[in-house]
Amino acid sequence: MPAMNAFYAQSGGVTAVINATACGVIETARKHQNKIARVYAGRNGIIGALTEDMIDTDRESAAAIKALMHTPGGAFGSARYKLKGLEENRAEYERLIEVFKAHNIGYFFYNGGNDSMDTAHKVSQISKKMGFPVTCLGVPKTVDNDLPVTDNCPGFGSVAKYVAVSTQEAALDVASMATTSTKVFILEVMGRHAGWIAAAGGLAGKKEGDAPHIILFPEVPFKKRDFLKRVRQCVRDYGFCVVVVSEGARYANGKFLADQGTRDAFGHAQLGGVASVVATMVRDNLGLKYHYAIADYLQRSARHIASATDVKQAYAVGQAAVKFALAGKSAVMPVIKRTSDKPYRWKIESAPLGRIANKEKMLPARYITKDGFGITAAARRYLEPLIRGEDYPPYVNGLPKVAKLRNVAVKPKLKTRFVV
Amino acid sequence: MPAMNAFYAQSGGVTAVINATACGVIETARKHQNKIARVYAGRNGIIGALTEDMIDTDRESAAAIKALMHTPGGAFGSARYKLKGLEENRAEYERLIEVFKAHNIGYFFYNGGNDSMDTAHKVSQISKKMGFPVTCLGVPKTVDNDLPVTDNCPGFGSVAKYVAVSTQEAALDVASMATTSTKVFILEVMGRHAGWIAAAGGLAGKKEGDAPHIILFPEVPFKKRDFLKRVRQCVRDYGFCVVVVSEGARYANGKFLADQGTRDAFGHAQLGGVASVVATMVRDNLGLKYHYAIADYLQRSARHIASATDVKQAYAVGQAAVKFALAGKSAVMPVIKRTSDKPYRWKIESAPLGRIANKEKMLPARYITKDGFGITAAARRYLEPLIRGEDYPPYVNGLPKVAKLRNVAVKPKLKTRFVV
Repeated sequence: MPAMNAFYAQSGGVTAVINATACGVIETARKHQNKIARVYAGRNGIIGALTEDMIDTDRESAAAIKALMHTPGGAFGSARYKLKGLEENRAEYERLIEVFKAHNIGYFFYNGGNDSMDTAHKVSQISKKMGFPVTCLGVPKTVDNDLPVTDNCPGFGSVAKYVAVSTQEAALDVASMATTSTKVFILEVMGRHAGWIAAAGGLAGKKEGDAPHIILFPEVPFKKRDFLKRVRQCVRDYGFCVVVVSEGARYANGKFLADQGTRDAFGHAQLGGVASVVATMVRDNLGLKYHYAIADYLQRSARHIASATDVKQAYAVGQAAVKFALAGKSAVMPVIKRTSDKPYRWKIESAPLGRIANKEKMLPARYITKDGFGITAAARRYLEPLIRGEDYPPYVNGLPKVAKLRNVAVKPKLKTRFVV
Repeated sequence: MPAMNAFYAQSGGVTAVINATACGVIETARKHQNKIARVYAGRNGIIGALTEDMIDTDRESAAAIKALMHTPGGAFGSARYKLKGLEENRAEYERLIEVFKAHNIGYFFYNGGNDSMDTAHKVSQISKKMGFPVTCLGVPKTVDNDLPVTDNCPGFGSVAKYVAVSTQEAALDVASMATTSTKVFILEVMGRHAGWIAAAGGLAGKKEGDAPHIILFPEVPFKKRDFLKRVRQCVRDYGFCVVVVSEGARYANGKFLADQGTRDAFGHAQLGGVASVVATMVRDNLGLKYHYAIADYLQRSARHIASATDVKQAYAVGQAAVKFALAGKSAVMPVIKRTSDKPYRWKIESAPLGRIANKEKMLPARYITKDGFGITAAARRYLEPLIRGEDYPPYVNGLPKVAKLRNVAVKPKLKTRFVV
């Protein structure tokens, strides 16, 4: 078979290490140019394919591609864009295949979360039906750590490390201020549906009384009275209280804590992270001085404190995706299989996209302590290896050096335009 | 003169490197035990002296003291506690001298900001009047960088580095999301009165169009229309807009942006960082999707990304304070004097507390661009050396190792109790 080109796209919220996966894909493909001629990257993800706006990664130097290893964000642009079902929007799938055909693209690497795995799966099916079979590989990426089958998801380990380190550091701060000032510190972290990131905050504490004293998971219905009681206890017993709250924390009826229905002076719904909601409760009911932080994008772009394990795995799934494709596998995703906890050992296997697409893996009940406010030993065993090791970027004049890509466009070949 | 003991206390908001200063004080004192017998640290700062609750640092191993170099927070506890004027509360000063006398304390090292320099100054004066002259040294510490005379303040360089690095990282994130998702990212940073920390965010951008596109300083009266116009321009020209906003950003009439006077469903004043206020403006007026982060304590405790320059200077001021004291200087503070920008060179000198106490150094107008939204080349020249170099803490199992102090109490000698 003559060499064909590959298409690589980043999808959904980016991570500190998604570019390490891109590096794994591109470097591995470059070693097999007899089969994969060039890797084209979608500018702004799948939209780049639909609009025939692709980047020729062959125009980048080996050094620039290597620098992706330590560059956060999505180097080619990502997209929050979910292809609809086949019946609803067949035109999009047909356009995709049309572009692939025009550019001799025989390999599709889709780097994303649940939705993206579904898209990769569908593209694989429709390309066959349309007589232009494309080898479709899902490549896992999500800070939410909620993909099934794989033991963990690239991107999560680094957020987990950021949250654990930040919790430990802020706890030392508030501990030293508590006698005369702040007594309650609240850190809001990501995870709208699953509490994996919030759970990682728990790694900062090793023994009874260590911060964080309270974790609020989306998986545990929030009970205001129990929460406030526990805050009061912590302040009494330890002098202060550190709370890690997931943005997805909710009441038993499913309503998010962040959804307060409050209005500003103009009658507009008041914005507000869950951290400020929890802080208000502490102030109004306990009268305690608080501070809160909202990590937001800082947590998922914090390449400066990335987990070495995570960086390695992010590269490995990119590398494996190309190898699987070259071995003739399609409609699969590389998954991380943990073979041992102590010492931590893992390997890459492949799993069919059909088993992964559109499924979410929640924090299991056995990872949450009985009172609902902490993590168990089993959770620590699972989480701890994922944050291990530091993988520092190079610095110039005090700031991390990042990849400078040329991002040269592939010349369009189609006469038709496609509007997304 | 027979050896006397020293009293060291941490004051006000802690920093990522205040313990490096403690290390400088203690290690230097230990080299001169013929003059300084023991260093006692105030538990929770000056309150520890008033309540005769002091920690005998002599009970700590050399390794534990050395580990203070990479431990954020205040290892002995800090206090937000300002001694009143002499006329208003002479009893407090007298109590302090009484405790110093009972414990043979001839040296007072007060590690803090403006208020603390005032206290150290007053203690120096009253101790003489009371016939028990104490050698009083102010030791600079403040993330706000607002002490006069000194070129910069220990603690600031590390916050500056954290803010610059975080801004750069988050900007890469939002840049890759902007086409289909978030277009405006807002980072709220500390600095209620002076815009030094916000200015540091400006280091993330080197040229026109680089993020951050807008910095909101306390020194520049906020004009909503100009701000929104600039946001719109940035999104049009660059596809996205990154804003760094100081918590002290305010209107021309002096009112803080954060002070919105909004009420929740129960009529309580709505909490809200300035970030959410700015975000609401962007949403209501421009209809753009935004995200915001509030760094809060994370920024000032982020020892994991401390500036090597800052760590060195934090140690140096502690060391110099002891040396000055041993040389018979009193009522002075070690100041950092910059002798060259390129290469960056500095040395430590001493300055009288009277010149420093109760004065704030604002961001000079020449550091702010004409439009009020950015930093000038002069600001870069000043700021850039302060964030240079990485000084990583050691890690165990993915988390920074911190000093474990025994914090053994000095046996009280006084019969009287003092309630603060």
